[in-house]
Amino acid sequence: MDLVIVGSVALDAVKTPYGQVDRVLGGSAVYASMAARYFCRPGIVGVVGEDFPAEYLKLIKDQEIDTSGLQTRKGKTFFWKGNYNNMNCAETLDTQLNVFADFDPIIPQEYRKTKYIFLGNIDPVLQLEVLQQVENPDLTAMDTMNFWINGKRSELLEVIKKIDVLFINEDELRMLTVEKNILKAAKEALEYGPQLIVCKRGEYGAFVFGEDFLFYCPAYPIFDVIDPTGAGDSFAGGFLGYLAQAGKIDKESFKKAMQLGTITASFCVEDFSLNKLSKIELKKIEARAGSLQKYVSFK
Amino acid sequence: MDLVIVGSVALDAVKTPYGQVDRVLGGSAVYASMAARYFCRPGIVGVVGEDFPAEYLKLIKDQEIDTSGLQTRKGKTFFWKGNYNNMNCAETLDTQLNVFADFDPIIPQEYRKTKYIFLGNIDPVLQLEVLQQVENPDLTAMDTMNFWINGKRSELLEVIKKIDVLFINEDELRMLTVEKNILKAAKEALEYGPQLIVCKRGEYGAFVFGEDFLFYCPAYPIFDVIDPTGAGDSFAGGFLGYLAQAGKIDKESFKKAMQLGTITASFCVEDFSLNKLSKIELKKIEARAGSLQKYVSFK
Repeated sequence: MDLVIVGSVALDAVKTPYGQVDRVLGGSAVYASMAARYFCRPGIVGVVGEDFPAEYLKLIKDQEIDTSGLQTRKGKTFFWKGNYNNMNCAETLDTQLNVFADFDPIIPQEYRKTKYIFLGNIDPVLQLEVLQQVENPDLTAMDTMNFWINGKRSELLEVIKKIDVLFINEDELRMLTVEKNILKAAKEALEYGPQLIVCKRGEYGAFVFGEDFLFYCPAYPIFDVIDPTGAGDSFAGGFLGYLAQAGKIDKESFKKAMQLGTITASFCVEDFSLNKLSKIELKKIEARAGSLQKYVSFK
Repeated sequence: MDLVIVGSVALDAVKTPYGQVDRVLGGSAVYASMAARYFCRPGIVGVVGEDFPAEYLKLIKDQEIDTSGLQTRKGKTFFWKGNYNNMNCAETLDTQLNVFADFDPIIPQEYRKTKYIFLGNIDPVLQLEVLQQVENPDLTAMDTMNFWINGKRSELLEVIKKIDVLFINEDELRMLTVEKNILKAAKEALEYGPQLIVCKRGEYGAFVFGEDFLFYCPAYPIFDVIDPTGAGDSFAGGFLGYLAQAGKIDKESFKKAMQLGTITASFCVEDFSLNKLSKIELKKIEARAGSLQKYVSFK
């Protein structure tokens, strides 16, 4: 196991200007692991209900994503329903936590020595519990959202203090730090403890901020964004999957991780659910990574 | 004369979270020429009223900006009053066209063979008049705004058809083309006639789009944005000033132009009015240009 990914496994109903889908595979842990698996062997820690379709489980397993940390509980799978009128911002129409309401993330024994850990966007109390179960990882990363920033700020700050890489979108970074200037916000967040802030900016790409380190990466140009769901998680998954593969934690690796996270996210948004992200040819990842480099190169 | 810049010369009253100023020097032609003059010899075509302070005229002339195209008319100078609660978007509180209402852009004889022309954001009818007065330029560029897109669309499209480079912000590009996806919008706008679309995205930077050409440039990181007024014009001025200096129109020059426009804009926003943009040391421009390259380099 190279990378443990803790997060939601969901059934989603999504509507965008390009169509709509119902009860399709989704969730932060699924998107992140599906992106990571192009670079390393990820394992999921999550929970599903008895209604979780066998074909979805098969899809996950077929991609060589380890599911020994995926619990099945009595009840229904976490359900999210969202609408994108504006492709930069989902409108949540319904959230049914179901079995996720009592999720108790238990890290299987064989995951506990894993060197790379991603805490997807879940309750910071659970994120802390996960950290207590893992032994001496090389790199821990987390994501979060406005709900926890507003509702469980002190618990959230406790997790942020303990991890290495904070993935956060720009509005939430401003909310967390109460700084309007995004660079000041990143600088402030760095003082909470992480080595690195990865600020996600949707169609504008992302930047990474650390001590004496700043690197911008645009989004890969996609003319037909079909469904943005999972873009942030597939970005984080590609990012961490590459790091776990490289086994190095330095500026050069972070830049490459930004590049590959950007590319996995670009495939994610080109279709609903995991339809595209689950079947990318490696040579297409390489081709887009090469193009992206050209789009920013001054030479 | 290397670059003719047609546009407004204004007195501005601006309020931002960092302070406020009244009747300070502003206007698209002033910001653009002040940025361009670090790279070439620009000349302004515009109009001021009898109230235009002698010290502002001196400031412009002292920067070796040619003012033989700057008319003085009976009446008051164009006045704009704006407020920035959000640094990405000005709220216009007052616009007094004054002498600008009857502006008749007359290109002085000695400007007519100039090879580089920038049509700042003015009435497209006037932009067309300027184009009719110049002889065989190497490169013509223009800026515009929502007011003309909505109010004088057919005249605007006529200018766009005739010029080489369209500077436009992303909201206005979407408005112009009725395309939501910004890349599709740029592709559509390219079909209106220009060689190149330069899409300005405020704090996210800019991208340039042409046939078989796409290049992204982030904004230079500024922790203390004091006043965003003139950022777009100083970007265009630096961009075109560099091209006029280089005397080459190719992809490599466009990339360098993006870089230097980004840098002149970064100085512009660090103080009110032209306070900083009018006195940058060249070595500081070079230093920021070098840093910017580092912030996007995968190496």
